[in-house]
Amino acid sequence: MENDPRTDDLGFARLDLDRAGRTGDPEVVYGAGKTPEQIVAILTSLERAHPERAVLATRLEDEALARVGEALPGAELHPVAGCVTLGPLPEGRGTVAVVSAGTSDARVAAEAALTARVYGAGVDLIEDVGVAGLHRLLAVQERLNAAECLVVVAGMEGALPSVVGGLVGVPLVAVPTSVGYGASFDGIAALLAMLNSCAPGVTVVNIDNGYGAGVFAARVARQSVLAP
Amino acid sequence: MENDPRTDDLGFARLDLDRAGRTGDPEVVYGAGKTPEQIVAILTSLERAHPERAVLATRLEDEALARVGEALPGAELHPVAGCVTLGPLPEGRGTVAVVSAGTSDARVAAEAALTARVYGAGVDLIEDVGVAGLHRLLAVQERLNAAECLVVVAGMEGALPSVVGGLVGVPLVAVPTSVGYGASFDGIAALLAMLNSCAPGVTVVNIDNGYGAGVFAARVARQSVLAP
Amino acid sequence: MENDPRTDDLGFARLDLDRAGRTGDPEVVYGAGKTPEQIVAILTSLERAHPERAVLATRLEDEALARVGEALPGAELHPVAGCVTLGPLPEGRGTVAVVSAGTSDARVAAEAALTARVYGAGVDLIEDVGVAGLHRLLAVQERLNAAECLVVVAGMEGALPSVVGGLVGVPLVAVPTSVGYGASFDGIAALLAMLNSCAPGVTVVNIDNGYGAGVFAARVARQSVLAP
Amino acid sequence: MENDPRTDDLGFARLDLDRAGRTGDPEVVYGAGKTPEQIVAILTSLERAHPERAVLATRLEDEALARVGEALPGAELHPVAGCVTLGPLPEGRGTVAVVSAGTSDARVAAEAALTARVYGAGVDLIEDVGVAGLHRLLAVQERLNAAECLVVVAGMEGALPSVVGGLVGVPLVAVPTSVGYGASFDGIAALLAMLNSCAPGVTVVNIDNGYGAGVFAARVARQSVLAP
Amino acid sequence: MENDPRTDDLGFARLDLDRAGRTGDPEVVYGAGKTPEQIVAILTSLERAHPERAVLATRLEDEALARVGEALPGAELHPVAGCVTLGPLPEGRGTVAVVSAGTSDARVAAEAALTARVYGAGVDLIEDVGVAGLHRLLAVQERLNAAECLVVVAGMEGALPSVVGGLVGVPLVAVPTSVGYGASFDGIAALLAMLNSCAPGVTVVNIDNGYGAGVFAARVARQSVLAP
Amino acid sequence: MENDPRTDDLGFARLDLDRAGRTGDPEVVYGAGKTPEQIVAILTSLERAHPERAVLATRLEDEALARVGEALPGAELHPVAGCVTLGPLPEGRGTVAVVSAGTSDARVAAEAALTARVYGAGVDLIEDVGVAGLHRLLAVQERLNAAECLVVVAGMEGALPSVVGGLVGVPLVAVPTSVGYGASFDGIAALLAMLNSCAPGVTVVNIDNGYGAGVFAARVARQSVLAP
Amino acid sequence: MENDPRTDDLGFARLDLDRAGRTGDPEVVYGAGKTPEQIVAILTSLERAHPERAVLATRLEDEALARVGEALPGAELHPVAGCVTLGPLPEGRGTVAVVSAGTSDARVAAEAALTARVYGAGVDLIEDVGVAGLHRLLAVQERLNAAECLVVVAGMEGALPSVVGGLVGVPLVAVPTSVGYGASFDGIAALLAMLNSCAPGVTVVNIDNGYGAGVFAARVARQSVLAP
Amino acid sequence: MENDPRTDDLGFARLDLDRAGRTGDPEVVYGAGKTPEQIVAILTSLERAHPERAVLATRLEDEALARVGEALPGAELHPVAGCVTLGPLPEGRGTVAVVSAGTSDARVAAEAALTARVYGAGVDLIEDVGVAGLHRLLAVQERLNAAECLVVVAGMEGALPSVVGGLVGVPLVAVPTSVGYGASFDGIAALLAMLNSCAPGVTVVNIDNGYGAGVFAARVARQSVLAP
Repeated sequence: MENDPRTDDLGFARLDLDRAGRTGDPEVVYGAGKTPEQIVAILTSLERAHPERAVLATRLEDEALARVGEALPGAELHPVAGCVTLGPLPEGRGTVAVVSAGTSDARVAAEAALTARVYGAGVDLIEDVGVAGLHRLLAVQERLNAAECLVVVAGMEGALPSVVGGLVGVPLVAVPTSVGYGASFDGIAALLAMLNSCAPGVTVVNIDNGYGAGVFAARVARQSVLAP
Repeated sequence: MENDPRTDDLGFARLDLDRAGRTGDPEVVYGAGKTPEQIVAILTSLERAHPERAVLATRLEDEALARVGEALPGAELHPVAGCVTLGPLPEGRGTVAVVSAGTSDARVAAEAALTARVYGAGVDLIEDVGVAGLHRLLAVQERLNAAECLVVVAGMEGALPSVVGGLVGVPLVAVPTSVGYGASFDGIAALLAMLNSCAPGVTVVNIDNGYGAGVFAARVARQSVLAP
Repeated sequence: MENDPRTDDLGFARLDLDRAGRTGDPEVVYGAGKTPEQIVAILTSLERAHPERAVLATRLEDEALARVGEALPGAELHPVAGCVTLGPLPEGRGTVAVVSAGTSDARVAAEAALTARVYGAGVDLIEDVGVAGLHRLLAVQERLNAAECLVVVAGMEGALPSVVGGLVGVPLVAVPTSVGYGASFDGIAALLAMLNSCAPGVTVVNIDNGYGAGVFAARVARQSVLAP
Repeated sequence: MENDPRTDDLGFARLDLDRAGRTGDPEVVYGAGKTPEQIVAILTSLERAHPERAVLATRLEDEALARVGEALPGAELHPVAGCVTLGPLPEGRGTVAVVSAGTSDARVAAEAALTARVYGAGVDLIEDVGVAGLHRLLAVQERLNAAECLVVVAGMEGALPSVVGGLVGVPLVAVPTSVGYGASFDGIAALLAMLNSCAPGVTVVNIDNGYGAGVFAARVARQSVLAP
Repeated sequence: MENDPRTDDLGFARLDLDRAGRTGDPEVVYGAGKTPEQIVAILTSLERAHPERAVLATRLEDEALARVGEALPGAELHPVAGCVTLGPLPEGRGTVAVVSAGTSDARVAAEAALTARVYGAGVDLIEDVGVAGLHRLLAVQERLNAAECLVVVAGMEGALPSVVGGLVGVPLVAVPTSVGYGASFDGIAALLAMLNSCAPGVTVVNIDNGYGAGVFAARVARQSVLAP
Repeated sequence: MENDPRTDDLGFARLDLDRAGRTGDPEVVYGAGKTPEQIVAILTSLERAHPERAVLATRLEDEALARVGEALPGAELHPVAGCVTLGPLPEGRGTVAVVSAGTSDARVAAEAALTARVYGAGVDLIEDVGVAGLHRLLAVQERLNAAECLVVVAGMEGALPSVVGGLVGVPLVAVPTSVGYGASFDGIAALLAMLNSCAPGVTVVNIDNGYGAGVFAARVARQSVLAP
Repeated sequence: MENDPRTDDLGFARLDLDRAGRTGDPEVVYGAGKTPEQIVAILTSLERAHPERAVLATRLEDEALARVGEALPGAELHPVAGCVTLGPLPEGRGTVAVVSAGTSDARVAAEAALTARVYGAGVDLIEDVGVAGLHRLLAVQERLNAAECLVVVAGMEGALPSVVGGLVGVPLVAVPTSVGYGASFDGIAALLAMLNSCAPGVTVVNIDNGYGAGVFAARVARQSVLAP
Repeated sequence: MENDPRTDDLGFARLDLDRAGRTGDPEVVYGAGKTPEQIVAILTSLERAHPERAVLATRLEDEALARVGEALPGAELHPVAGCVTLGPLPEGRGTVAVVSAGTSDARVAAEAALTARVYGAGVDLIEDVGVAGLHRLLAVQERLNAAECLVVVAGMEGALPSVVGGLVGVPLVAVPTSVGYGASFDGIAALLAMLNSCAPGVTVVNIDNGYGAGVFAARVARQSVLAP
């Protein structure tokens, strides 16, 4: 189904085989709004059809994760990300650094990191670096500079991308999260802040869209060759 | 007139004399929406009535500044702030540090600084420190810590208060400015970011309201005695 | 974790020890989104690490309060505020007056008052004073004037800060609450009213953010020395 | 023309003659978007058609006022309200008290007061009473109680109707004005505050709609007979 | 408690006794957010304190209605309005006509009608008249004209007040309801339509605020004496 | 009840009989907010009153569908659309093509298609054509051209109507759906996109309003005679 | 240029010749944002290229109208609509009735009517029928019923489409206009009202988009054959 | 100045020399809000300080362009983009394809293309491809695939990025423009559409921010090496 951010029915999988072969992109199942039974059925079918390729299922609740674990012994569960992977992952070309401030952004950061990995990039996950504790951020500056693409995840006031973007010149994708309350408006405050970042060269994806940021960053990283 | 953020008619001045005598607050004229002639007339009247007290006029356009300069030789013009002062300023007790990132926030920062000064606080104006250039901000950390109250002015993504609030524990008033374009929505993006600051102890005033922040910060600073 | 308004993991606590020693700020656990078990575990750990310092846990549901009461006999429960404190409270320097209109704002007012107390200020809680019953507000004018900082809590039309700010010249932090229905938009109406207050020197925090107002007000009060 | 808040073409006037005869309502010309020439022409025509009845023209700029004054010597100009009246006013039955805080709300208050008068009510205009100066409001409480209907005009945080509505039990129509800046959003902040007033029995009209409030209040006042 | 649209604690009741004696207003309990037990306790207390006066409780869920019915045999239950009344109702002076389109607006219309009655007005409830079936509306034009005040309740596009306001010249209070879906935004579409009504003399209350409209309309009706 | 998008009480049905006889429109029951028992009762009554005419019930949950199936053996259940039909359908004149991208828009598309059929048009349902897979859309261009009216259903960015409207000149009604997350704002993003379509001749209905689009499209299709 | 609602460069015109030949659609120039010189040049070029076909230019200011009149003697000027036509108009098949309330909606209504005519439909323009004067609307009910498609233009509260849609069963396209002030938000109030119309079968176009409504309605009307 | 999206004072230039030397980024002057004189002065100063490096000035009005052309004979003027460049451009590594629909998006597209070029990427500008004319888009598919990064510029409904993103797997940055009227809300409709794109791997920048998109895309392109 193309009018969805993820590809999740077999008819669509048939269609996309060509692109996947060309790009190395995996099969993807978007789990939100699906029953655990439906998810197991789709994954079973995809695994049988493409045993040589990676499959990624996102937005799975705990119960769906458990059911997939029982039904598909070969599945790897990623509970923090709310995801499952099946099949061999592609070689990781280039590096995507995923940066976030803390535990409340962990799910979105983990989804972005796993997605980038399944889409063929190496990943460096850097958590626990918030704008209210600059020394920790400054301590990882080298790791930021070593990446071909950055994914910066932040909720509340969404200031982290501006600070990171002022430190390094690496292409940077910002992901607002719905963390916060009151006038955070479920992520709108962070989204607006990121769209108005004073650091040039920052782009933005939808609220909580770790998947989309991971896809984009992987595409950038895997086609890049940094100077030694 | 009480239903206005500034006090600008003589009837009101009569009323407020008591409070001013008690608090050291100046007479204030809010210049927006007034003709240069009206501003000159009000200032002349106030100066005559209260020659021993400070008078502050805010939100003056260039033409009004020029006319006041001609008509009232004793007036001090503050063109960056768009303000005029008359009469002796009160002694400055405590220090308000006004922090901003650059030239586009200069008018609001200058209005806040002058207001704090006229309301009886000492002022330290620290410009040119933005989140995309952390070393400059880190270089002024001592000056930030030495203040009794901070006013942090920022437009666009409004991230500066969060970063400053993570560095020091001084009471901090954030002022969003209408600098930006597109999805900055004339300062709403910065306002929301500041309301959602991850640094505890940040409070916020209306967009471009340097005056209000200056009044508040002066009240805090002049009643404070920091440990040596 | 710095990208959160509260500090709640042990790694962070380690970091902040210096500041806490310097500022008197307590350890803080933000309870929203945590299970009662997690809250008990964090509090147990913090109490063991810092037996000589105050610990504050906020946004606790009834079940979490009960579990903490059973597991930590030394804990003091504050059911109206939805909070728990552990350890010795710091001496109260200066006074924060927390003002609200009635029972529907009680939780936010209690959170602000307790936070200010744990952060080292004395507190005067003044409830039941709404703009639709001015005589009660006028009756407490002396108590308002005696404070070094005011926290004014209001939902619905958010008019109370303007009226209080017209009565006294004390620094005033306004807290909009999500009380109301229809076009109150979960506190936005009150937030906008407070940002546009006609009383100069009013600052604002996020909707329902009693904690943030309490931190700010305590910082102001404990550094203040009012004239006798 | 019925799809407009005011009635301003002769075709419509013909239609409404019956209602006017029955209700005492005047002919009305809505001046916004019309040239001074058009306004003069319409007024000339209406005066000739209904010499025995009152005619009201609203939202006139200074130039239109001047042109009407030259062309129609019998016209009475109301420059503060931006209005013109022609012909004999009806007897004033009952009293509408129009309350506002200061000079920036003066135009809307004057429009409401004049409209109520032309629609057949007596009017008591009470200006200069804002929520930040309660003693002045308390001083006019008797005049408020003596009215059959109140029109309360306020910009910025829009708190005045709540305070007035807490003092007296008279039917109260609130008019938000577009006075303010930043997060006042051209009157939306005041509008929301009034819709959420904690004082029961407050109703609201559109931003700056002094005309609509005046019509409503006159209808209430002229049909009321208060106990002596 | 004054910062609430209704008066519901005994302390407040003590305060309001004077006004109630003067105005005929009843005691009011706002049931939303209270347990059935709390509601029964408050009503029991109010009935004992003021057996000679009317008591109104609003926003009661089915369970609360049932519990009140069991505990207070003298209570009259109004299930459509979600309300309960106790004690003798005041004489009905004047007439409030409450107009609505159909079953989905029935609760708000019933709350408005009952409130107006308890506040001392006679009531004529006219349901089932929508703008998409004009003949039914035209059939009740006489009843509309016979009222001293109209309350017009509508959801969705909120067009009914404009059409009714074009038919009669009676003071009209419009109540938007949260009926609708999608771009009705829980009543905002209807609220905006009513604020922009092309019929002059329409005022508006908050979304679903039948209570507020009823209080206002009763105040108008009971002070009016229409010409025979 | 006319103030509802559907007609669902027997009083109303009586009224509308004339129009239905004239237009061929069916009886309609709007199921949202009704219990299964209420729905069964209304359908039973309508079937008895109009055995010769079509009846449509929309917005039924699974339980209501099951109860109707048990109670009314002659009912035809449409589980994807969440609808039930009773009685003979009218002859289908002209063709409405309902176009959507995939499974998440299926319910709204099915409601539109069934509604158009029950209102007297033939229907061609074309699913699985999204803007991210143009070849499938291009493959159905002939079917699009053969219709007298198009209903194009899309969530997320709502781009499908613009692309379809660029391919063919058939009258096109766009239906935004609430599919999406974050900044899709429950369908507002798609609604705005459709209102701003660069393809001329696109009209829009409310979010998720498949019913309204179906009614409109059927009216267009059944009065049209395309050139052979 | 396809990313614009109108087609206005020769490259595009070349492309669209096929569709125009097939559909009878005219060449269109969107005048907003173009200089009078540019408009004259484009029209001259189009007239030369397609002397046998209709050309429509929309959104022309007075100066552009005058310049076109001087440069192209064969052009027909439509000052109320702000449009110009060139070349022979197509035969009018079917009838589009364009309905509006008054002079402030006249420009949009005239643009819709002219567009429908140039796109090949007959047109019946019905002005001066507002919801606050129902008798005039009822007087034209026959003309409404005789049309194959309705375009209903309204500003302010946007109630007219609901009332018209309740009177007749003809396909109805609603056009919100930016007429109004304050909380009309430049047409948003009317737009929302129309999207939430209680009359089924109403579709909506963008604010002030008379052109889009005219295109759509002409497509419907010219393919329709009503029963005699 | 760091709190601005562009770097435009000499102090800042001094700071950024290191980064520029490392990254190849040019000196940038943000022209909005500056007088022609100020722009000439800054450019003169920058050219003298860094004769060997590229300088870019953006957002210049016609008058500023002319003045720069007179004062700095070595400057290259880019009137469509509203930009000026000085000094030698860096070698273009990789290719950024900038895609837009037509003349109304030309300025933003030209700014993005020029920025990408000055920041060190090769550029392929592809205009005149809109979603309402798919054949032209399909005709350039090879050029899209040959780029290392895409910048897709669109106003109104903002659908172009979704369609392009469905055709190719190249990293794609979407730029909403403020083209449109009514419910386009100055680019918000396009911004929301792009944030909700059904094509995975689309990122977004602020409305009209061609500069930011160009910087980001150049960074991606110049570090990429595509497989032959």
